[in-house]
Amino acid sequence: MGDNKMAIVDTDIHERAQYSDIVDRLDEPFRHYIENCHWMQEKHMPYTQPTVAGVDRADAVLLDGRPAGSDLEFMREQLLDDIGHDIGILTGALDPSPSSMHGWYEMATALASAYNDWQIENWLERDKRLYGSVHIAAQDRDEAIKEIERVGSHPKMIQVLLPIDDIMWGDPYYHPIFEAAEEHNLMIGMHHNEPPVYYGKWPRYFIEWHTLIPTAHMKQITSMMFNGVFEKFPNLGLMMIEGGYTFIPHLMWKMDQQYRDLRHEVPWLTRKPSEIMKDQVRFTTQPAEELTKQEFYSLIEQMGTDEMLCFSTDYPHWDYDSPHRALPRVDETLKHKIFAENARNFYSKLPKAEDK
Amino acid sequence: MGDNKMAIVDTDIHERAQYSDIVDRLDEPFRHYIENCHWMQEKHMPYTQPTVAGVDRADAVLLDGRPAGSDLEFMREQLLDDIGHDIGILTGALDPSPSSMHGWYEMATALASAYNDWQIENWLERDKRLYGSVHIAAQDRDEAIKEIERVGSHPKMIQVLLPIDDIMWGDPYYHPIFEAAEEHNLMIGMHHNEPPVYYGKWPRYFIEWHTLIPTAHMKQITSMMFNGVFEKFPNLGLMMIEGGYTFIPHLMWKMDQQYRDLRHEVPWLTRKPSEIMKDQVRFTTQPAEELTKQEFYSLIEQMGTDEMLCFSTDYPHWDYDSPHRALPRVDETLKHKIFAENARNFYSKLPKAEDK
Repeated sequence: MGDNKMAIVDTDIHERAQYSDIVDRLDEPFRHYIENCHWMQEKHMPYTQPTVAGVDRADAVLLDGRPAGSDLEFMREQLLDDIGHDIGILTGALDPSPSSMHGWYEMATALASAYNDWQIENWLERDKRLYGSVHIAAQDRDEAIKEIERVGSHPKMIQVLLPIDDIMWGDPYYHPIFEAAEEHNLMIGMHHNEPPVYYGKWPRYFIEWHTLIPTAHMKQITSMMFNGVFEKFPNLGLMMIEGGYTFIPHLMWKMDQQYRDLRHEVPWLTRKPSEIMKDQVRFTTQPAEELTKQEFYSLIEQMGTDEMLCFSTDYPHWDYDSPHRALPRVDETLKHKIFAENARNFYSKLPKAEDK
Repeated sequence: MGDNKMAIVDTDIHERAQYSDIVDRLDEPFRHYIENCHWMQEKHMPYTQPTVAGVDRADAVLLDGRPAGSDLEFMREQLLDDIGHDIGILTGALDPSPSSMHGWYEMATALASAYNDWQIENWLERDKRLYGSVHIAAQDRDEAIKEIERVGSHPKMIQVLLPIDDIMWGDPYYHPIFEAAEEHNLMIGMHHNEPPVYYGKWPRYFIEWHTLIPTAHMKQITSMMFNGVFEKFPNLGLMMIEGGYTFIPHLMWKMDQQYRDLRHEVPWLTRKPSEIMKDQVRFTTQPAEELTKQEFYSLIEQMGTDEMLCFSTDYPHWDYDSPHRALPRVDETLKHKIFAENARNFYSKLPKAEDK
């Protein structure tokens, strides 16, 4: 299966820590709580919505029962070596994200730090191909900034990861986090965490909320855009992870239309939102909607740029996209951009192709 | 300005009742409450988000101070005669919609009935061109069905109007309403009522929530689709009003993808969602995103049908679309479909062109 001639930068791989990986890195009282209280169990099925397809590829679960994504050797064998990755970007499988914890922010901050150290030691420093994400507990903003300062200069940390749930990331309260990220040449990676509940109500079926994930992504881009984050931090980029990409032309047209009509409300926004998106927002491709080649090209043309899409597998999740099958066959130049160059150009800390 | 050679079916005109128009039609104790308690004021600015552009066209407000959309003679002069409408479909300006009232459902039901009578007497029976919407208080389902049975057979009532807010319309609790609508040859018209608040939180700016209105529309189509409403009621159609149309290809692709992956969760769905949408879902065009002719054609091609879009002005709102300027110039056949035939074909009770 491996095709070594095809350059691949995979922008979304979910490595997973077990709590046993993290617990030794925690100080008291957090350690005691993790060891004794089984607190995470409350968050899981059947109290949340059943994911009818499960979460992980069945063949990615380890033979000894450890969860998918928890072992580097197995990930190498099944993904990196088999596919022939040049670069894989780890986005974590923190459930919930530290930024989504509603209480005891100190615990959230401690977990984020422990996770980052575990990630660096066991993944980033053990495989040349892997790059990582700084996890933070953004609700405790000043501690989150300290964490960015603590690990953000690591040469293989390339983005700060934020969850998509009930925080509106454009809110000025969070701007110092973006400032710290920009100072460390880190981009923002954003990934949904909870389903997009509207008006506090969950949809009736998993297929409904899985269909609506892109709407939560639109919500965050809109929040960042109209609150002026991109113009305030011109070197900051936003990677929207795992929301697909077919909504991009719609969102560009809609924001431009609204900007023409209502820009007096947001005078700090001095350029058309679509232009800002082209410069500063990127999208991982998984879960790739299944388009014909013609539909795919017309979509790229509607975007007005072929530099926004960055291939991702979403390994080891159940709806993993294979680089050989997920996207329609496009010409070599476009293929190379989507599968490698767009991500290399976006993440300023990634090696360029000639450095390989 | 009038161009009488161009057939126009306008699928979204907001006539507005003042409470003085309604109060005489209410029984006690509802009448007393409306007359004495000024209850509606609680819902209005500044307690809700300021609409930075206002709500109505300044030139649509009457000289005597009555609100825009409240007078048939003035609407004729400014809209129907000036533009040369063949048909105008009234969608109301109930704020909030009776279905959105969170308490005292009997009051909501009484208001809907009074409004429907006022609409029939003062609009539908006074202008040949105008067709109307049955307003209901759907939260009191059985009373809502009685109201559909009471006025739904009126020859000029063509749809049941539902608001888009915190009700998920695919929920089986509401299916008897769809059954009653189908029995009366009424379609469902759906119009947003509150902003799309995610996780209970309002966006910071009006431009944000106005940008995100389409996401609330996507949410309802998804709910109706995966809860099986369209297959259960094959003669029922859904008109999505005032959400624009550039998100349609995205939603079709996304639902089809999810259907392929997760259809075992919703076994009652036996066809691809995109095919069902082509048959049973339509979209009014306003607020039309400003596309080039080429972008517009590529979007239609992505939809796979030119029968989904139905022109609307949204008169008398501030972002009114003129039939002469809102859409790019397209060929005569497509123009005729969008401006008239698609709506005539969708609403089974509308006269066909030759009946004019």
